[in-house]
Amino acid sequence: MLTVFGTMALDTTRTPFRVEEKILGGAATFASLSACMFTKTAMVAAIGEDMPAKNIEAVRAKGIDTKGIVTIRGGRCFHYDSEFDYNLSNRTTLKTELNVIADFNPVIPDEYAKSEYVYLANNDPKQNIKILEHFENPRLVVCDTIEYWIQTAKDDVERMMKKTDGVVINDSEARLLCKEVNIAKCAKKILSLGPKFAIIKKGEHGAVLFTGDGEVFPATAFFLNEISDPTGAGDSFAGGFLGHIARKGSADFKTMKEAVIYGNVMGSFAVEDFGVKRLLALAQAAVEARYQKYRSLVQF
Amino acid sequence: MLTVFGTMALDTTRTPFRVEEKILGGAATFASLSACMFTKTAMVAAIGEDMPAKNIEAVRAKGIDTKGIVTIRGGRCFHYDSEFDYNLSNRTTLKTELNVIADFNPVIPDEYAKSEYVYLANNDPKQNIKILEHFENPRLVVCDTIEYWIQTAKDDVERMMKKTDGVVINDSEARLLCKEVNIAKCAKKILSLGPKFAIIKKGEHGAVLFTGDGEVFPATAFFLNEISDPTGAGDSFAGGFLGHIARKGSADFKTMKEAVIYGNVMGSFAVEDFGVKRLLALAQAAVEARYQKYRSLVQF
Repeated sequence: MLTVFGTMALDTTRTPFRVEEKILGGAATFASLSACMFTKTAMVAAIGEDMPAKNIEAVRAKGIDTKGIVTIRGGRCFHYDSEFDYNLSNRTTLKTELNVIADFNPVIPDEYAKSEYVYLANNDPKQNIKILEHFENPRLVVCDTIEYWIQTAKDDVERMMKKTDGVVINDSEARLLCKEVNIAKCAKKILSLGPKFAIIKKGEHGAVLFTGDGEVFPATAFFLNEISDPTGAGDSFAGGFLGHIARKGSADFKTMKEAVIYGNVMGSFAVEDFGVKRLLALAQAAVEARYQKYRSLVQF
Repeated sequence: MLTVFGTMALDTTRTPFRVEEKILGGAATFASLSACMFTKTAMVAAIGEDMPAKNIEAVRAKGIDTKGIVTIRGGRCFHYDSEFDYNLSNRTTLKTELNVIADFNPVIPDEYAKSEYVYLANNDPKQNIKILEHFENPRLVVCDTIEYWIQTAKDDVERMMKKTDGVVINDSEARLLCKEVNIAKCAKKILSLGPKFAIIKKGEHGAVLFTGDGEVFPATAFFLNEISDPTGAGDSFAGGFLGHIARKGSADFKTMKEAVIYGNVMGSFAVEDFGVKRLLALAQAAVEARYQKYRSLVQF
């Protein structure tokens, strides 16, 4: 089982072509909706009373265990309001309202404690560290983080990374964290904290996997002619990556490389429609078909 | 035979780590030094009296036919002075001195007229169009261009592209030319001018090949831990791309995909040292070894 901890949010997403207010979002949501295509997935998240019941039902309908989703009495959901420019690549944060996640003390349902795989999605790194105490003996713990935590709690971010087996992080955030421009040097710094691998995500340009053994795997993104909303691409990448590792029950280099491609594939689905729409409608066969399409696309 | 027409320059290149003044550079130089690893290559370029003889000798020593290099009496070489920022990715142009290339009326040695392959490297598009009249019946004509010509002679750039079979261009320059952010849309616009294929180069992120038949081939860049000087990477890409096509004698999709990888490989060599240094010292076996290394690197 894979347990995902992080934000389950209401997002307001603005592109020059469309604005959607308070739609289902959050790092844990995207990662779980992606991972559930591969493996039994459970979610831990704090939500407010303003989360529409239909959103929880939509997630549960995908087979995700939602017992770990805690509604905070009188609280309001984490709300992220952002705007993309015309190229749908540069995002400006308009508002980050932590709300219920500000002082969340994470607990997990008993049956989650035996999870073999744990994904600490974007979330307060202190809480991410804390929740790890509840798991008995996970085989693989992976985390992500974002600019907000690097700028407000950098020491905690590094303490969190020390406790993980792998880090999945955006290129710009890796640069901010490591004070290095070269992503290979960023990865080296992250690996020096302890994780066995680091994946630097490069948005539309794909991702690069670096291992502590010095192995490197650069992978171009799945090619799309058009995208609708880049929100959640990185979280969906992480969900696909960990989902494939969990279903294979292995994290050897070969499996990790396949997992990076599944990550790219899941990211490519996520951006095809607004918010989680595409992931909610996604069938297993479409995932495998796109994986094969990716393989033939990059073949030479 | 492949004939390359374009600039043979003296470059002043500044990085935060090193400055080199008036070193051998120019689009035709990089492209020829790259292409000559694959096929018989001839150069056409205008130079000034200030071009050190040792530079011509170095190019000739690689087996490149230099009879098409014309020294303009009393003239000075094209000089490009630029500065890279700390990440060696953003370049600021400090000076572009056209000098001898300003009013060059290109002629070619008679034996170049039968060239099957012609590469119109970065150069005045009017001259690029003019030189084409001298070739009898080339099988494949490919061009590149840069911001300078798009901004000062856009109509000529488009007229030039209409006369080619393929365009190789940077992502930022494709966007500037096409007034589109999405590179797939840029490629579509370029293809609508007439070329059968367009390659959008994305620097450290690789390149994407688009064909008029709707085929797409995205290729990540060869992974390097460190680079010295990105100057000439794109020209070296084009040289490797055309060089491989010329040696295979085919421009079918399979060969073009291999050629894109050879282009990536040659670009990766070019940036390992300042200016043309790495290309001058390059052995054939190293090129093939890196091609195989690329193949195993991206394998999954």
